[in-house]
Amino acid sequence: MCQLLGMNCNVPTDICFSFEGFHVRGGATDSHRDGWGIAFFENAGYRLFIDTKPSVSSPVAELVRQYPIRSKNVVAHIRKATVGAITLENTHPFVRELWGQYWIFAHNGNLSRTQWPSGGYRPVGTTDSEAAFCHILNELSGANAASHVELADLAHQLKALTREISATGTFNFLLSNGQYMFAHCSTQLCYITRQAPFAEAHLIDRDIAIDFREVTTPDDRVTVIATSPLTDNEIWTPLTADQLAVFHEGRLWDIL
Amino acid sequence: MCQLLGMNCNVPTDICFSFEGFHVRGGATDSHRDGWGIAFFENAGYRLFIDTKPSVSSPVAELVRQYPIRSKNVVAHIRKATVGAITLENTHPFVRELWGQYWIFAHNGNLSRTQWPSGGYRPVGTTDSEAAFCHILNELSGANAASHVELADLAHQLKALTREISATGTFNFLLSNGQYMFAHCSTQLCYITRQAPFAEAHLIDRDIAIDFREVTTPDDRVTVIATSPLTDNEIWTPLTADQLAVFHEGRLWDIL
Repeated sequence: MCQLLGMNCNVPTDICFSFEGFHVRGGATDSHRDGWGIAFFENAGYRLFIDTKPSVSSPVAELVRQYPIRSKNVVAHIRKATVGAITLENTHPFVRELWGQYWIFAHNGNLSRTQWPSGGYRPVGTTDSEAAFCHILNELSGANAASHVELADLAHQLKALTREISATGTFNFLLSNGQYMFAHCSTQLCYITRQAPFAEAHLIDRDIAIDFREVTTPDDRVTVIATSPLTDNEIWTPLTADQLAVFHEGRLWDIL
Repeated sequence: MCQLLGMNCNVPTDICFSFEGFHVRGGATDSHRDGWGIAFFENAGYRLFIDTKPSVSSPVAELVRQYPIRSKNVVAHIRKATVGAITLENTHPFVRELWGQYWIFAHNGNLSRTQWPSGGYRPVGTTDSEAAFCHILNELSGANAASHVELADLAHQLKALTREISATGTFNFLLSNGQYMFAHCSTQLCYITRQAPFAEAHLIDRDIAIDFREVTTPDDRVTVIATSPLTDNEIWTPLTADQLAVFHEGRLWDIL
């Protein structure tokens, strides 16, 4: 099993505080030592940092910690390898372009099925995760001739695909196209939405606190999604089995 | 106009020496201040570092300088924006997956044509370069049902596409799938192949020299491709107009 971290905001926000707690789970406070990755949307573009080293000792993680990148949508993952060797091509998140948008995906869990009908999107590595991601993109691109799909339609199509793939194993995932963040729970995923009035938050994995009143404006709204809560003095909402949550502009849009 | 830097090797090699000279052209020894990027293949996977800051002052460039990444195929670019705003989605190199391989592309020059027939690959940004890259991928994927295409066939298809696109402007480019490096010259591109007996090389853009005898083994073979020579005591071979050079395992495979 791996660990997921996602963020969806209404204004570009840095993820430094959450990443500070998250990255030590990659080899220090938890045993996910088989690589890690983080992707930041910056408008339509993205930055992807991946490494096969444990996040706790990766020079690339050090850069991410020290260089606050502001983003409205972030997907991060630390890996405990189960299916697929510890190589860069098997390191999450995975990126593809669909409809002239980048789509970014990370998965936690094991799927027994790694072969899906072929299409324009093919996995490069050997993980169950990338194969499932390509299946989602092949199905979405096949089902929608036009490049613009209404969010409600997209969410329903993703729900059906998620149900199909979940039948083959555990499928906790984060998926974003830079506008929306889709978060699916098979077994474990929770989220918190922070908005005014902001308060102080204290990490679980490191003895670090932040007073969000000092670093926000009253209109800011930020949702953080993680495998397990990152802070010990806030209330995180667990998703339950088979829920697909959709976040937009920093808040929960719907749960399917 | 922008500047290109590529490397194709028979063993994973770090590009630190060449990048040391190249990156100062992004704002110091030359005026390409509108972002930069570098992509390293690592087997089938890749690392992509892009930034909209000038390479000479980018913290991401600092990481690349200090963290030697060994790769058999590298594509780098520093940008002087002509078509498309200075945004991350317009920053080279561009990455797509075709046939279960990542393909990485960077372009120098202006193309008057930015719209090509639509297909499965669509540009995310607004550059002439990404539009041309998507056109190449749409044509290659449409022309080859199978996932494996012989290098000779691939090179001929690329030559025809390059001719078509070059008719609309200047099309110096580097393209790699992690195995082969395709380098096309419209106006300016040169290369050097270093192999035993190795010697000392001295940069043009910075007063730094390296003795390759101390950092290589007798079987190493490295080709470096750049818009203009990076060293002043070696002989670089210029490509001439409309030449498409193909490099494999560190040496010139053919020129079409």
